[in-house]
Amino acid sequence: MAWDTQETRRRLKDAAFIEFAERGPAGTTMARIAERAGINKERLYNYFGDKQALFETVLTDELDKLAAAVAIDSPGLKDIGEFAARTFDYHAAHPQLARLLLWEGLGGGPIGDEQRRTAHYQDKVKGVAAAQRDGVLDDALDPADLVFLIIALAAWWFSVPQLAHMLTGADADHPKERARRRASVVLAAQQLAAPR
Amino acid sequence: MAWDTQETRRRLKDAAFIEFAERGPAGTTMARIAERAGINKERLYNYFGDKQALFETVLTDELDKLAAAVAIDSPGLKDIGEFAARTFDYHAAHPQLARLLLWEGLGGGPIGDEQRRTAHYQDKVKGVAAAQRDGVLDDALDPADLVFLIIALAAWWFSVPQLAHMLTGADADHPKERARRRASVVLAAQQLAAPR
Repeated sequence: MAWDTQETRRRLKDAAFIEFAERGPAGTTMARIAERAGINKERLYNYFGDKQALFETVLTDELDKLAAAVAIDSPGLKDIGEFAARTFDYHAAHPQLARLLLWEGLGGGPIGDEQRRTAHYQDKVKGVAAAQRDGVLDDALDPADLVFLIIALAAWWFSVPQLAHMLTGADADHPKERARRRASVVLAAQQLAAPR
Repeated sequence: MAWDTQETRRRLKDAAFIEFAERGPAGTTMARIAERAGINKERLYNYFGDKQALFETVLTDELDKLAAAVAIDSPGLKDIGEFAARTFDYHAAHPQLARLLLWEGLGGGPIGDEQRRTAHYQDKVKGVAAAQRDGVLDDALDPADLVFLIIALAAWWFSVPQLAHMLTGADADHPKERARRRASVVLAAQQLAAPR
């Protein structure tokens, strides 16, 4: 790709990311995204297809970044708390990702890039199942459920921040409170999954 | 209130509940809600104020129903799994509630009816703290965090159903799968919070 095409695509995707995270796919338009990028709407359609396809592109890009940051690999899975901590840290640093996932769930449409995402999650399940067989993790819970629930412990803070505020009475953005919540997530993940 | 006023209010609130759960407050209008109820828009404004006030009314009504269904009372808190199970069952039977909470969080506006809701959550925290002192629950986790994380285990399934589907490969609406997920939530809550 020529440099200017790459640059245009990047600007369009950045604008789409901001719009989708803020308002959700139903809450924005292709025209608005193009306008935010300062680029002609026709090029947005040409490069990314329709709004649903663009949303999928943005979401899967973000999930790829998350996956790279918090990979589970069974031989390295000495501590499930570490996976929970990395998931928490990633969401804290990228609060838009939880928003994109929630918008996707609320939209109720088809799952974007479902096959590849499913394969990715199933890799995590295999890693956890292997750790359960090795006695590194408790095996009472189904490994898929365990992955899902560890993600819940880490991501719930960024999904219902109002609930976290009413319960803790604290400011989520304060470094002390963030560290406190992170420590609770790590401890909870360990209690949930450590062998007994 | 005269019967017809009560009936009109009920119809307006029902219509608002459906619209808000489906599209979120930003995704619908007062005109649309009034039209769904088949009642004049002026009466909607007269009875409930503006859209934000109406959303708060709908949400707090639903939360009151949840609170009545899944009360925690410390002397009765013999099993945290029971609280998790009731929370899961309530969300399964009323999937709109999780949607309303997620819309509220995504909207990022002021928390509706914050004082009363905070008092309600703090009652739960007190119940858990008492159970921790009594040795009924593990006291390693802060009681507010424990309440928050037990809710996470139960409600996450209804918040990112697409993620649950990719991980479990199963249909959330099938009674067997629902029972399986419920059992995992109960077990997870017990492992998280049972004294060791």
